[in-house]
Amino acid sequence: MPPGEFALIDRWFRPLDGRAGQGRPDVVLGIGDDAALLQPPAGQWLVAALDTLVEGRHFPPGSEPRSIGHRALAVNLSDLAAMGATPAWALLGLTLPANTDDWLQAFAEGLGTLAARHGVALVGGDTTGGPLTLSVQVLGFVPPGLALRRDGGRPGDLVCVSGQPGEAALGLRLLQHEATLSGAGTAAQRQQLRRRFEYPEPRLALGLALRGVASACIDVSDGLAADAAKLARASGCGLELKAEALPLSAAMGDVAGRAVALQAVLGGGDDYELCFTLPPAREPELATLAAQAGCALSVIGQLTADPALRLLEQGKPRSAPWQGFDHFAAERSE
Amino acid sequence: MPPGEFALIDRWFRPLDGRAGQGRPDVVLGIGDDAALLQPPAGQWLVAALDTLVEGRHFPPGSEPRSIGHRALAVNLSDLAAMGATPAWALLGLTLPANTDDWLQAFAEGLGTLAARHGVALVGGDTTGGPLTLSVQVLGFVPPGLALRRDGGRPGDLVCVSGQPGEAALGLRLLQHEATLSGAGTAAQRQQLRRRFEYPEPRLALGLALRGVASACIDVSDGLAADAAKLARASGCGLELKAEALPLSAAMGDVAGRAVALQAVLGGGDDYELCFTLPPAREPELATLAAQAGCALSVIGQLTADPALRLLEQGKPRSAPWQGFDHFAAERSE
Repeated sequence: MPPGEFALIDRWFRPLDGRAGQGRPDVVLGIGDDAALLQPPAGQWLVAALDTLVEGRHFPPGSEPRSIGHRALAVNLSDLAAMGATPAWALLGLTLPANTDDWLQAFAEGLGTLAARHGVALVGGDTTGGPLTLSVQVLGFVPPGLALRRDGGRPGDLVCVSGQPGEAALGLRLLQHEATLSGAGTAAQRQQLRRRFEYPEPRLALGLALRGVASACIDVSDGLAADAAKLARASGCGLELKAEALPLSAAMGDVAGRAVALQAVLGGGDDYELCFTLPPAREPELATLAAQAGCALSVIGQLTADPALRLLEQGKPRSAPWQGFDHFAAERSE
Repeated sequence: MPPGEFALIDRWFRPLDGRAGQGRPDVVLGIGDDAALLQPPAGQWLVAALDTLVEGRHFPPGSEPRSIGHRALAVNLSDLAAMGATPAWALLGLTLPANTDDWLQAFAEGLGTLAARHGVALVGGDTTGGPLTLSVQVLGFVPPGLALRRDGGRPGDLVCVSGQPGEAALGLRLLQHEATLSGAGTAAQRQQLRRRFEYPEPRLALGLALRGVASACIDVSDGLAADAAKLARASGCGLELKAEALPLSAAMGDVAGRAVALQAVLGGGDDYELCFTLPPAREPELATLAAQAGCALSVIGQLTADPALRLLEQGKPRSAPWQGFDHFAAERSE
């Protein structure tokens, strides 16, 4: 056997494949054959997503490999969270310039720790040489009819967001160009923002709690304004967001100042929070949902019958980054 | 919406997602949400594979985009063929340097034509900017217990291979460095070899025919000798191949000469043929299997209780490329 590719897979990835200790008896055959053999639960829909991360595009060159491993899986689990799905299995396409044991150990730890926390087995994939690129594919389940989709919102539905969008975008700026953020902020606040970029937490518990409750859902990957707009469009609605209602953490305000922080809340896409809509009659359930999900939930606006996209600040229209991040027009992380 | 990524997906990939004309009612929700929703058939095992192709590594820079689209799906379907699975759905992670309509049209045609031929719906994925890299993930099904694995071979089982391995490797040499192949050969023969690299045909019909018949199976992606050795090792056996029994097409011999052609048969990995083992008592079924699969089948050796790997030519041991292609030690297509 060639020592490179196969030894690498055996050493770092096979322990994550669900047969040894990850506790997934539904993995009939994991890493090591031409394909994985899996036993889907009867009567469930399969939920499948694939996201790619490219060095210099989705994370800065030289990022911590542990963070890269975490994020490669987290961005995909976030897609399942946005569907209200329970994750089960993942496959990894890893392209890397060189087979470096230290790098791979930290990468596998980052990916493996998050996988174990959510009961996900890594059942297959492919490792090859080339520019650092990671494609992860995740598979999960949802009972038929209970999946959260983008197209179920109705005019009048409340638009909500989880946690604190924008912290990760400021964290990325700190990782890349610390000097451009002139606000004070403590070292702990700066560390909090950096960690939000490096270790985003997919909102899987929230996705489960929203089954049968939210009318539509999307994960915030391209920016809150842009992703809320996508949800509104898919639902055949317009959108009105209220600047005063946007969450804004003390760390964001202290480190970046209010104006830059608000831009980050609306335009930052690396937190992987969930944006969802709720029929107004269900607003009283928000506190229970927040407790189930273990994160704050904010009502930030509503869907409208008028197809326009609006951001209002004290009743006056403001511009907002409705277009989001274009992976061909801009380079985010270089 | 950003014009780049979303317009691209809408224009070129959404038509392949199984709802419009690809005839897959098991696609509940295809491209366009955070994840795809799929209905697995009751009582089947799910078969999942993911393979990555990198420009300059798995295909020469500047390759025809139609061929790249075909190969990105074909190498994955070949993994399902090697398991005896029926393919159903695919996801595509496409990283490309620029959003070029001409390139994408040809790429989507190459991928879409092969997908349609095998009833595969493209249900999701991700498109981003960066060095040209393609990760395709395919999902299919196999009845429980009928999957072809690498580890079922027994000493004495016949080692067989489909079609003509090695033609694609010579075709790649013609595409890259035509002058290094000094043999004569006709223009049609050279074209035949090039097309075998550019448009390999996954042996899905053969995989189905081998269910319940072959004792083990692997697809030839790293070279016939190396992949046959992997099958033997997984089955706890050694291997004896006979040089005289290796198939060798007229095109290979005429274009490359016998010695180079034999090297290509044993070491070339881009044909995506199947290598499988058969209990000796089933040898009479080979003609029927070949007819069902629509391709030639050759008996090239047998598994042995002795763990050694041997290539014999007129009874004498010869060296063979048992190590195969190491994606970190060598660059294949640059």
